[in-house]
Amino acid sequence: MTRNVWEYFSTQNIVFGNGSIHNLDKLLKRFEAKNVFLITDQGIVQAGILKKVKEQLALHNYEVVVYDQAVPEPPISSVMEAFEFAKSQMETDVIIGLGGGSSIDLAKVVALLMEHGGHPRDYFEEGNVPGPVAPLIAIPTTAGTGSEVTSVAVVNDTENNIKVGISDNYLRPAVALLDPELTVGLPPYVTACSGIDALSHAIESYTAKDFKHIDAEGTILFQGAFPITDALAEKAIELIVNNLTIAVQQGSNIEARGNMMLGSLLAGLAFSNAGNALAHAAAYPIGGLVNSPHGEVTGLLMAYVMRYNVATSKDKMVKIAKIFDLDRDDKTTTELAYAAADAVLNLLEEIGLPTKLSQLGIKEANLEEIADKSLSIERLIRNNPRVPRKDSLMKLLKEAY
Amino acid sequence: MTRNVWEYFSTQNIVFGNGSIHNLDKLLKRFEAKNVFLITDQGIVQAGILKKVKEQLALHNYEVVVYDQAVPEPPISSVMEAFEFAKSQMETDVIIGLGGGSSIDLAKVVALLMEHGGHPRDYFEEGNVPGPVAPLIAIPTTAGTGSEVTSVAVVNDTENNIKVGISDNYLRPAVALLDPELTVGLPPYVTACSGIDALSHAIESYTAKDFKHIDAEGTILFQGAFPITDALAEKAIELIVNNLTIAVQQGSNIEARGNMMLGSLLAGLAFSNAGNALAHAAAYPIGGLVNSPHGEVTGLLMAYVMRYNVATSKDKMVKIAKIFDLDRDDKTTTELAYAAADAVLNLLEEIGLPTKLSQLGIKEANLEEIADKSLSIERLIRNNPRVPRKDSLMKLLKEAY
Ligand SMILES: [Fe+2]
Ligand SMILES: [Fe+2]
Repeated sequence: MTRNVWEYFSTQNIVFGNGSIHNLDKLLKRFEAKNVFLITDQGIVQAGILKKVKEQLALHNYEVVVYDQAVPEPPISSVMEAFEFAKSQMETDVIIGLGGGSSIDLAKVVALLMEHGGHPRDYFEEGNVPGPVAPLIAIPTTAGTGSEVTSVAVVNDTENNIKVGISDNYLRPAVALLDPELTVGLPPYVTACSGIDALSHAIESYTAKDFKHIDAEGTILFQGAFPITDALAEKAIELIVNNLTIAVQQGSNIEARGNMMLGSLLAGLAFSNAGNALAHAAAYPIGGLVNSPHGEVTGLLMAYVMRYNVATSKDKMVKIAKIFDLDRDDKTTTELAYAAADAVLNLLEEIGLPTKLSQLGIKEANLEEIADKSLSIERLIRNNPRVPRKDSLMKLLKEAY
Repeated sequence: MTRNVWEYFSTQNIVFGNGSIHNLDKLLKRFEAKNVFLITDQGIVQAGILKKVKEQLALHNYEVVVYDQAVPEPPISSVMEAFEFAKSQMETDVIIGLGGGSSIDLAKVVALLMEHGGHPRDYFEEGNVPGPVAPLIAIPTTAGTGSEVTSVAVVNDTENNIKVGISDNYLRPAVALLDPELTVGLPPYVTACSGIDALSHAIESYTAKDFKHIDAEGTILFQGAFPITDALAEKAIELIVNNLTIAVQQGSNIEARGNMMLGSLLAGLAFSNAGNALAHAAAYPIGGLVNSPHGEVTGLLMAYVMRYNVATSKDKMVKIAKIFDLDRDDKTTTELAYAAADAVLNLLEEIGLPTKLSQLGIKEANLEEIADKSLSIERLIRNNPRVPRKDSLMKLLKEAY
């Protein structure tokens, strides 16, 4: 059956610019906030970023309590610790999540528990968040996850040995505050991994199956590509393609940093509505086998998934090739479409990331398990424009190996 | 001084598609609504659209009170009548604005008064709306104003003989519900005027001065062009250029209707953040002199304003020319830029709208007054990429005459 309706969700308010951290007071005033609970991590403390943000808050006499123990893909115990700590303090009017995707994800789950109580596990199933969460301002310091505008928070259920994305449109932060100056200290490798992840979000949502043909009933969070997500993803691809290498090679290039933040943000708006697809599906089992950062895996896979998807999505691949400025009269559209995939491989090399799964420490014997596990991630697999089957997916993984 | 920060505001939730009116129950449930106050106009009643919407509400047992006396650019007396009527009824959980821009504008002001009391005049000044207004679902039945996602409601202060746009980000409807099937009955002339207005919103925000160089201090509603508004405006131009003539000529072409609704929506998101410019500034005094629909005036002026703006905005005009598919190897970029303006004139002819001010009943003797009054609309004039001066604006108006 054809799906006729799409539903776009957005963060209501996005503030962007060098020095925009100075707007924090104005933003907090809109919530009539006095008491702020700030969630961040040790990297942010050591980079001196927390200090800058606290100065802004002190200048305007806010009461601030800081939890600075956020860790990547926060385990449930860490979520509960942050939540109990927040509860033990004075009333909280606004929660600030400051840092990479993990600090913001943790802030989302704390904001959820603050408002609706219970335990993170109560919300693993989609649709269980009953209403808006506590007011949340997200201040990202990396350009990659897009968590500042997305509906997803990844937590680690260590007892059951599974990483879960709590997903709900109510989890979108009320405000996303992006100040490129905060990302200047980020090392090249982190910039590369998070930036290429943002590119994979943009490309996966841009080339996702059209919303009309997603094989699912009723309300779904990841709906396939539709015109608004296309517009956002296209702009995101353009920004990332034109700025990622510069941001990696010239860490203090504030313009490239700003464009990467913006590209990552737009990619976040796109994929949190359209959804990711096969590259992300395959990245999850690989992430379970090796310790590579998420973006290193999704970026690498993206190039091969693009080749795989040319069969159904030539027009969109050609558009991506045009963004890469590969459009020449002597190329057929099919050649152009494949050239887009090659351009992503080339980009990986420019930013110093691996282009083969074997470089990550994956063994050929792992590929079958990776294929099986990928195929079981229904909400991502059904989003891919070419429906992966075991044999063709194995072929793809061997190419990428 | 350079402005460093932009702030993007969006409607949180946009629902789009043929038959999406069936989603109304689901949307109302999110607000835990039981009692609905519905604002519409006689045209909607006669077209049988109100009946369709009421059926949806009856099916799910909502209590519904209807005010069906909305009029174009509602006078304050009409706003107060609707508001008093709403207050005299049972409690209202959600307000629905159903119809063209005027019904939705009226619903916005009623939602404002329901939440914060007072009189429309209390809110004429920007920044006077203290917080979110009552929950509002906008269901447009035309494709043009973009009111379903904008921060503006135009009311007519007849006592003081002035039309005022109450502008505040809190006025954006909580939900925009767009069902192209509701627009099928719209006559060609209305489709043409509202559609070309949407195009002028898209082009004016796309070519608006870059946000960095807007000459204003502090927080402003219309901030000039920035990357998100560019992405939205570009997609809007594409959708409108490719679908307006078909929607006018083939009223029942539901695909063209849908694309026009979407183009108008994206243009609304763009201009309510970036702002309109000279074509809208000049349209206001012209609207005071003749009875032409707003879009007939803005669409006509747009072509001449584009010619005028080539001087500062060649790159963007070239991109518009490319969307019109005018890109040929034998044209210089300057020729292409002017070709974009000519393409808008050509579009006006295709959809049967006038291309000269004299056709609207404007006299040559009016032009000076029009120029003077246009130049006084600071927030639109400062947004224009080429700063209009009296002499050059007179030249523009004479060309358009
Ligand atoms: Fe990712
Ligand atoms: Fe307009």
